[in-house]
Amino acid sequence: MRNICMTVSYDGTAYHGFQVQPGKITVQECLEQGIKILTGEEVKVISSGRTDAGVHSRGQVFNFVTASQIPVERWALALNARLPDDIVVRHARIVPDHFHARRSAKRKTYRYTIRYGKYPDLFKRYMEFHHPTRLDLDEMREGLQHLVGQHDFVSYCSVRNTKKSTVRTIYEARLECDPWDEDLKSTAVHIYLSGSGFLYNMVRIIVGTLLQVGEGKRTSLDMRSILEAKDRASAGPTAMPHGLMLWEVFYPE
Amino acid sequence: MRNICMTVSYDGTAYHGFQVQPGKITVQECLEQGIKILTGEEVKVISSGRTDAGVHSRGQVFNFVTASQIPVERWALALNARLPDDIVVRHARIVPDHFHARRSAKRKTYRYTIRYGKYPDLFKRYMEFHHPTRLDLDEMREGLQHLVGQHDFVSYCSVRNTKKSTVRTIYEARLECDPWDEDLKSTAVHIYLSGSGFLYNMVRIIVGTLLQVGEGKRTSLDMRSILEAKDRASAGPTAMPHGLMLWEVFYPE
Repeated sequence: MRNICMTVSYDGTAYHGFQVQPGKITVQECLEQGIKILTGEEVKVISSGRTDAGVHSRGQVFNFVTASQIPVERWALALNARLPDDIVVRHARIVPDHFHARRSAKRKTYRYTIRYGKYPDLFKRYMEFHHPTRLDLDEMREGLQHLVGQHDFVSYCSVRNTKKSTVRTIYEARLECDPWDEDLKSTAVHIYLSGSGFLYNMVRIIVGTLLQVGEGKRTSLDMRSILEAKDRASAGPTAMPHGLMLWEVFYPE
Repeated sequence: MRNICMTVSYDGTAYHGFQVQPGKITVQECLEQGIKILTGEEVKVISSGRTDAGVHSRGQVFNFVTASQIPVERWALALNARLPDDIVVRHARIVPDHFHARRSAKRKTYRYTIRYGKYPDLFKRYMEFHHPTRLDLDEMREGLQHLVGQHDFVSYCSVRNTKKSTVRTIYEARLECDPWDEDLKSTAVHIYLSGSGFLYNMVRIIVGTLLQVGEGKRTSLDMRSILEAKDRASAGPTAMPHGLMLWEVFYPE
């Protein structure tokens, strides 16, 4: 038996998230079915963590144990031929038996994209949250810095959270802005958050709150006082899922 | 009455092309319905030319005559609110009565995008034709140059063509390559063709033939001998529609 680890990109638009749910189409189900067609085995795919309905992935990581003798360098193309167009395995490697895509993950990066300005980019409408009016990007950048470090993120977490501890560490939080598109009179603003782990809806609640900072409804300092309040009600709304992408997952070598 | 000219982008994936066809959803129909909801008028939209099913547009141009008094600077946002997400009007202006989006057009540019290399970019899968094996881009670039100038393009034209004259002028033909994406082991290759006008399927047949040049099945010089043959059967297949985008339409100022 071999433990195989893969990196997979997907467009989450058509899926009810990553994790298998009875009666709903999920990414995990497609992967497990593809592997079954390829090997005849009923494997269970272990991911680095679920993503919500409509959320995308550039670099989701999963592993599974198989008796198949398919050479590892052929796995990606072989599996892609058995997957829908909106799921693409980008890399496959053999990992030690103890490797577990969720438990072994050391750091995760998410990206949230806001298209800010007059017109949306229609070819990216499934991937960019469109905000037509002015945003104060400097204030948003400042607000993000208050989140860096180890904090109790209970305020920025869905009340449906089931995790015991709501303490997480954010290693890096940055905002990058693409060049202004004169044609669309808008630009894409990317918010990158890297951390030890993320709570349920954490990135989307942070972005929903940060948008209020950008709109001038809150100040950058509020990002910190919301942390201190330890109350979900003190934060802003949960931003739409389609702007969110699981960017990268890091493992110790 | 005012003659209004608009520039419109659309994702052609969901449409049976631009031009109204009974019983099928087209871009023109959506535009005319949007204008009707806005003004109550049954207008006829005149485009710079039809685009086929699945073909996209960055800068399609159309005009229509209206009695509406909506200020021209409000037209784009007002109409966008009444259009589906995959059609976005980017600009509106008042033009002289004699302006006709098709007859007044002086030059058109199309772009065709091939994703060349191992993996497709799944977030652009509706816009890029994926070609997994090697392409000789230099030979393709050379092949394109044989098309520049005034020629009878009947070999590069669908047999369903209804136009009397098949002579057209290509002003510019170029191939641009994006930086190599190490992650996807592929890159996007964009073919831009600018001309006085294009025959039915002309860009797609040129690209389908050029792909054979890139694969080494033909030489760059064949692009010229195909012109001289004046026979559709001498050219290659019609490339898939989804890689094609109407890029820009030029009018005399």
